[in-house]
Amino acid sequence: MSNSDNSFSDSERAGLYRAIYERRDVRSQFLPDPIPKPVLMRLLKAAHHAPSVGFMQPWDFILIDSLEVREEVLASFNEENAKAADNYTGERQQTYRSLKLQGITESPMNLCITCDRSRGGAHVLGRNSIVDMDLFSTCLAVQNLWLAARAEGIGVGWVSIIDQTRLADILNLPENVYPLAYLCLGYVSEFLDKPELETKGWRSRLPLEELVHGNGWGKPLIW
Amino acid sequence: MSNSDNSFSDSERAGLYRAIYERRDVRSQFLPDPIPKPVLMRLLKAAHHAPSVGFMQPWDFILIDSLEVREEVLASFNEENAKAADNYTGERQQTYRSLKLQGITESPMNLCITCDRSRGGAHVLGRNSIVDMDLFSTCLAVQNLWLAARAEGIGVGWVSIIDQTRLADILNLPENVYPLAYLCLGYVSEFLDKPELETKGWRSRLPLEELVHGNGWGKPLIW
Repeated sequence: MSNSDNSFSDSERAGLYRAIYERRDVRSQFLPDPIPKPVLMRLLKAAHHAPSVGFMQPWDFILIDSLEVREEVLASFNEENAKAADNYTGERQQTYRSLKLQGITESPMNLCITCDRSRGGAHVLGRNSIVDMDLFSTCLAVQNLWLAARAEGIGVGWVSIIDQTRLADILNLPENVYPLAYLCLGYVSEFLDKPELETKGWRSRLPLEELVHGNGWGKPLIW
Repeated sequence: MSNSDNSFSDSERAGLYRAIYERRDVRSQFLPDPIPKPVLMRLLKAAHHAPSVGFMQPWDFILIDSLEVREEVLASFNEENAKAADNYTGERQQTYRSLKLQGITESPMNLCITCDRSRGGAHVLGRNSIVDMDLFSTCLAVQNLWLAARAEGIGVGWVSIIDQTRLADILNLPENVYPLAYLCLGYVSEFLDKPELETKGWRSRLPLEELVHGNGWGKPLIW
């Protein structure tokens, strides 16, 4: 029942770390080339092998290639983005408006990963104390897909500037199904070396050492 | 500014997929051997390179090797688990009670990944419409760490049967900091071939095809 050899080769391990470090949130570099079905199914299978609370597997995958549906989603983005821009003033607002924050119609395929909050019945193992564990599990599936996509040369962008009630309407979701992640997928002209928000001076990467604590908040770990 | 060669070698890609498919939620196979600091820091660096909304990086990493702290956490698990067991009856309850659901003190290191909900100020880019995007980002960091751990031969188990208010007290978290994931980390005697809940007949893996929809809920995708 076990894998007798647990260990990864150097190149296998390097591949995993490469996907982690070279993954990007893509908005501007999408190519129109369609993603072949076998490749898309590999991405969904990777997502489906994420851990989930009580093996609940609360996710569904709605693939969206219809331009009509994508334009409805884009209209919701545009409304929400106009509201968001009003949160900033002066130079910061100018920078905000200069950022491209979605690739809904430029990418050839959109994907909504949903969370069925009723799956597995009333008492899902491990979801007694923290009821949002089903949403958290679905996020883990998103990250599996995002990394697999990078290894396949496919860019992914998560569109979070969106009205989820309206999105649920557009996709005709049942009442218990929450549209957790709206993703744009496509081959890309390039993967940027750094996150775009870092390059454009929006925010910097925090020093990792400042985020590490030992045995309680704000205490150093004695190694 | 771009990586001229986007593509992964076959073995790099295989390494990523291997981590995804052979990752397990570990509770019973922990070895007591300590994890060297450079290895632990590689895992935290992998987590720190997850995508985050508005490049918010809302996570902190509390490493816990103190047995005293871990025993307090275990006490919270035991209380919550007793309550959870009462949700089941008969044979199902017997099965539930036979499952090992945590490795808090058997593993040499625990790690709480938190989410600072105030980081980046009042208006984090992309967190206007969906306020929980900070929690979702932190989950993506958890999955990066989980996969990197697998590639390093380290097992990870997420303890979700826990009172998070009490956990925040034990770890002395500031008011805005949410203890999203409490993880047990350690080298393992083996990685099981399949999820333990599947092997023990608790739940089966769902057929992927049934979870794929096209352009709206319940509709097939025309390829």
